[in-house]
Amino acid sequence: MNSIWTLARRADRLNPSIIREILKVTEQPGVLSLAGGLPSAETFPIEAMREACAQVLTDTPKEALQYAASEGYGPLREWVAATLNAQGQQVNAAQVLITTGSQQGLDLVAKVLVDAGAPVAVETPTYLGALQAFAPFEPIFASVASDHEGPLPGAIEALRHDAPGCRFLYVLPNFQNPSGRVMPEARRQAVVAAAQAARVPLVEDNPYGDLWFDAPPARPLAARWAEGTVYLGSFSKVLAPGLRLGYVVAPPALHPKLLQAKQAADLHTPGFNQRVVHQVIKDGFLDQHIPTIRARYRAQRDAMAAALTEHLPAGSEWSAPQGGMFFWVRLPAGCHAMAMLDSAVKAGVAYVPGEAFYAHAPDRRTIRLSFVTLGPEEIRQAVALLGGVIRRHLNEELQEDTP
Amino acid sequence: MNSIWTLARRADRLNPSIIREILKVTEQPGVLSLAGGLPSAETFPIEAMREACAQVLTDTPKEALQYAASEGYGPLREWVAATLNAQGQQVNAAQVLITTGSQQGLDLVAKVLVDAGAPVAVETPTYLGALQAFAPFEPIFASVASDHEGPLPGAIEALRHDAPGCRFLYVLPNFQNPSGRVMPEARRQAVVAAAQAARVPLVEDNPYGDLWFDAPPARPLAARWAEGTVYLGSFSKVLAPGLRLGYVVAPPALHPKLLQAKQAADLHTPGFNQRVVHQVIKDGFLDQHIPTIRARYRAQRDAMAAALTEHLPAGSEWSAPQGGMFFWVRLPAGCHAMAMLDSAVKAGVAYVPGEAFYAHAPDRRTIRLSFVTLGPEEIRQAVALLGGVIRRHLNEELQEDTP
Repeated sequence: MNSIWTLARRADRLNPSIIREILKVTEQPGVLSLAGGLPSAETFPIEAMREACAQVLTDTPKEALQYAASEGYGPLREWVAATLNAQGQQVNAAQVLITTGSQQGLDLVAKVLVDAGAPVAVETPTYLGALQAFAPFEPIFASVASDHEGPLPGAIEALRHDAPGCRFLYVLPNFQNPSGRVMPEARRQAVVAAAQAARVPLVEDNPYGDLWFDAPPARPLAARWAEGTVYLGSFSKVLAPGLRLGYVVAPPALHPKLLQAKQAADLHTPGFNQRVVHQVIKDGFLDQHIPTIRARYRAQRDAMAAALTEHLPAGSEWSAPQGGMFFWVRLPAGCHAMAMLDSAVKAGVAYVPGEAFYAHAPDRRTIRLSFVTLGPEEIRQAVALLGGVIRRHLNEELQEDTP
Repeated sequence: MNSIWTLARRADRLNPSIIREILKVTEQPGVLSLAGGLPSAETFPIEAMREACAQVLTDTPKEALQYAASEGYGPLREWVAATLNAQGQQVNAAQVLITTGSQQGLDLVAKVLVDAGAPVAVETPTYLGALQAFAPFEPIFASVASDHEGPLPGAIEALRHDAPGCRFLYVLPNFQNPSGRVMPEARRQAVVAAAQAARVPLVEDNPYGDLWFDAPPARPLAARWAEGTVYLGSFSKVLAPGLRLGYVVAPPALHPKLLQAKQAADLHTPGFNQRVVHQVIKDGFLDQHIPTIRARYRAQRDAMAAALTEHLPAGSEWSAPQGGMFFWVRLPAGCHAMAMLDSAVKAGVAYVPGEAFYAHAPDRRTIRLSFVTLGPEEIRQAVALLGGVIRRHLNEELQEDTP
């Protein structure tokens, strides 16, 4: 850029989101998209929102529209603390910081904890949005080897030597984006023990924990190591993402710096939104609402599981997620998910190539499929189209290999 | 902090806002506060908000509550571009980035443009929130000497030698927070010419430009040097700050990096808020609404001007602002605004000591007084109390000096 402007070095680490670029391509009419991580709009509580907006603008319009405290709206912080405590944590409302979506929590955590050149550990694969939030602060990412239950305890212990001074390990234990995996009880215990042994604190992200289908996930890591864990939550998946409401719960040693970073970043999250959401949820709305989301997503999970079994060729690997929003599929040998995306979109179906979710050494055979955006019948059609694309690709490869 | 957590070096540059700390003290019942920069809640368009919320939740509820584009809501970006163009800029909607308040614009600008140790130039005094947004990115601040018309062109030209590689000059030309000053036409021309000569681009912040009392301010700097200026605007002062809606207009060379930083920071500003505000303003609401704010604030400005003349002792200096929200007062020799705050609050009046608004060498006799939060009668009472505090302080000093 030959211009009057000089960019900061960190700007090199800012790049267009691959998902965003893919969504541009796939948002063409006629494409069935399994790519986006968009919650089903059918679950949005529109009527409750309408009533809550009117109520807030009747009861406390001036307070809702005025500047407000950077920490967030007191009663909402109390609600968050009480809800987390009912799930096994021991949180004081004073530790809760309301954020503009939990994405902002990731940005603030990195701003406060990450120096250029400092190691930050992530799962393999890991949430792309976290990589994007952390990257501008120029960490050196350490990819922790992981299996279908989450990061391997031995690999966490090895961080002591492999990534000395590691600022934190970022983990998404419940129905991870992108892998869909959930960390079982024994793995949670082992992960916390390993992190403590390696003296690597944890950043625990939990946007999907309420979206379980059969049984709730085990207690959060934060409940086991409160002083060593920052915990992030979100209202995006249980109410609506367009409100941009999340929260960060931090140990008392860390909360003030996150709060100061929050204030510098946007003064405070919209007070109107905080009050409206509190109005919606304060009398138990979510106890009725979340089960309806679970039922819907479970049916869509089942539809996708059946369709994958029916339409994907031999050599494809996946396991049905027990909650959340995503299937993680490994295509047969010879497939390159990114290279195949173009023909998939031409055939009328879109996915996210899994390589976007690795800090290092991506597995290029992987893809992420959302089962929450489309209904069951569209899911079946989309997966059938996807199966055709893969089969054609494998056939062409076979022909090329045959002289 | 003897703990498992290691803070980033930049965390040293995060500190509790002095204003925030002062507001905690001054929000006691019985204290008339001239400290906060809170717009008058009487100006908030509650009825229009109520109708707009209902309309958006009827017309496009799913779109409003779903994830949305990081750039912002298209029609709102178009509105911003059209409005700025009517004021003399030449902006394409594609250059507009909707932010979570203009405070976020300051954070994003610094994230993209400021390296540790790089110079960033600011006015003397300057907006505290900008210092707070920039500081975590560890610039070396250069304070540009300024007078009642804004920064001195000679001091800007001198940046070429005094602060080589200066990333930008941050300026707030209209009714500056804290000084209340407005940059006249000739000074604008000279500032732009000096910045071009020194090859220092501009970050122009304009939250108060619509709040003029007698005549609109001269054309923005961005209209004179589009490729060398980032322009920030806000809906906080003309609608309501609790919605957290602002925008950054950047030259095409810079916009993509700001957009990527925005996406990493919070994905997008709440789409619901963007649609509600667009619904409120799209048919000319502000053309009727802003004049009512101007009339209210002009009357309050007049009340404060009269009260200052009546109650402040000789040796106090100020000039009545031609718009915006603040008087900037220099107390008589021997006054130390920070040291006197405690007795002021005990007497029932609060202000912000001006020293918070300097990157270097504060003038400790200065104070910032908001005339928009309280009504005329309360303003008169508050200034009378303030006059008493200053007089008592000067008398005590006199007595101490007399053996």
